[in-house]
Amino acid sequence: MAHLLLLLTKDNNCYRQLLAQQQLPGLVIASDDPQFISKADIWLAEPALAKPLLPLSPALTWMQSTFAGVDLLMAPRLKQDYLLTNVRGIFGPLMSEYLFAHLLTHIRQLPRYRTQQTAGLWQALPHASLMGKHMLILGTGSIGKHLALTARHFGMQVTGVNRSGEQHPEFDQCYSLSDLSRVIATCDILVSVLPSTTDTKLLLNAERLSLLKSDAIIANLGRGDSLDETALYQQLLTKPQQLAILDVFQHEPLEQQHPLWRCPNAIITPHISAPSVPDQVVAIFADNYRKFIQQQPLNHKVDFKRGY
Amino acid sequence: MAHLLLLLTKDNNCYRQLLAQQQLPGLVIASDDPQFISKADIWLAEPALAKPLLPLSPALTWMQSTFAGVDLLMAPRLKQDYLLTNVRGIFGPLMSEYLFAHLLTHIRQLPRYRTQQTAGLWQALPHASLMGKHMLILGTGSIGKHLALTARHFGMQVTGVNRSGEQHPEFDQCYSLSDLSRVIATCDILVSVLPSTTDTKLLLNAERLSLLKSDAIIANLGRGDSLDETALYQQLLTKPQQLAILDVFQHEPLEQQHPLWRCPNAIITPHISAPSVPDQVVAIFADNYRKFIQQQPLNHKVDFKRGY
Repeated sequence: MAHLLLLLTKDNNCYRQLLAQQQLPGLVIASDDPQFISKADIWLAEPALAKPLLPLSPALTWMQSTFAGVDLLMAPRLKQDYLLTNVRGIFGPLMSEYLFAHLLTHIRQLPRYRTQQTAGLWQALPHASLMGKHMLILGTGSIGKHLALTARHFGMQVTGVNRSGEQHPEFDQCYSLSDLSRVIATCDILVSVLPSTTDTKLLLNAERLSLLKSDAIIANLGRGDSLDETALYQQLLTKPQQLAILDVFQHEPLEQQHPLWRCPNAIITPHISAPSVPDQVVAIFADNYRKFIQQQPLNHKVDFKRGY
Repeated sequence: MAHLLLLLTKDNNCYRQLLAQQQLPGLVIASDDPQFISKADIWLAEPALAKPLLPLSPALTWMQSTFAGVDLLMAPRLKQDYLLTNVRGIFGPLMSEYLFAHLLTHIRQLPRYRTQQTAGLWQALPHASLMGKHMLILGTGSIGKHLALTARHFGMQVTGVNRSGEQHPEFDQCYSLSDLSRVIATCDILVSVLPSTTDTKLLLNAERLSLLKSDAIIANLGRGDSLDETALYQQLLTKPQQLAILDVFQHEPLEQQHPLWRCPNAIITPHISAPSVPDQVVAIFADNYRKFIQQQPLNHKVDFKRGY
């Protein structure tokens, strides 16, 4: 039995080549002609491109998201009678690069040394290190676990927060979301890699943010809507020793007039901490496709009730 | 039997307090009065401060260096009839912070994203990662091993080079110094943490440097005299895709007129990759002192023949 695959990505040509190399049995890749939207039973798709086409997809059986974040597909009244899988396990290493690039640059004062170099100035600055500092990671899935292992490699103490408080060996200890207000005050670095769900929406509000240490670092790499940006901005103005590292926002792109762009203790990047790399996505898709045609359970299945 | 300790550091007051907390039996800490130079049998000393006083030290039995690098004490005609120990095992984590701060910042293009932020520009740059890149580490002691583990954590392939080609499990493979010209051409990132010895002097000369890939990164964190700075500077001018990360120099401080300061693809820092932190040095000294009074072998003994 043949399966018809619809590609909905910004790199369709790249995906087409990578998929051809996989030689997946019985898989026909549809051209970009719109007539195939209603006929394809498998979609390999970016959620934002898939969402408007969902009402036109009677044949859709399985969608492999090319992104980790699938919250757009959880919107009310969108169909949910298909199998949805996302990509996991490939973003941890990239997010660790992004996060520790910023943390190490900050703690080891690279920008100040750069300025000194411009002036030809040979002068050691006061020494600081990540060793012994306390990182609190919101989200203990594959990304949170990888960040925890990197933090431990750099000698940090690492606490995780998840829905149930379930323990994971990558963390020194884990707490449930209901304990967040208690543990947030103890960390030096707060990192959110939470998905967007009703539980996480504006979780980091003015009240909780106010509990952070006066020189805490806050990094949001998960979803923009878990953080109250306006409250954070106000707080950053009054606590200049704090630093925010923000890769995700409530509205993306971040509006050009948003004051966070010009906030001296905020670092803004355009949602690039862990780009979906096509060859890694294709490897996950190919593995899942072979399971799909053998009617085995797929990897990284999304639970529409939980929303991730 | 009492032992008289001479402190020769830039932080004597700090060391005095930390030593007092250790309550080391029979240890008397001399004041900074010069009369004690000839009487102290134990020195806790920075090599540069100890060197000129060595001819005045008939009582010296054991010197604990506060630095890893003790090459100044290997100079010809300096006395060597004492036990010399240095500090090891504490610098790996700090050097990893320094090295990976620079590597991650470079590969993830933090400065360009910073410039884009200043302009309010939301634009993803081409993605690159340390994953899969090949790091060649010259020196496979405790520092080299720690850097290798960090590189592996970030998904890199790691080759080590040492005198004998002895294998170490922290590296994918190790080669001897005589193989250097062959393996240097294969690496993306070359890191030297070599000590200063006759074997390593100007090891990275014009000929070997010319074998590097056209976009290689060269980091020198060991000793300045293992690298021909003039040859490197000339090469950086003709290969703008290469990057040098330099924390140590043949003459320190680097002269203000040196053109490396203004070389766009060189990063200059003032020998700060792994400062000696007094409480870690005191822990090593205290451990060694307890062995010393029990006439047990000391940790981190320097071999005057090898020079490290």
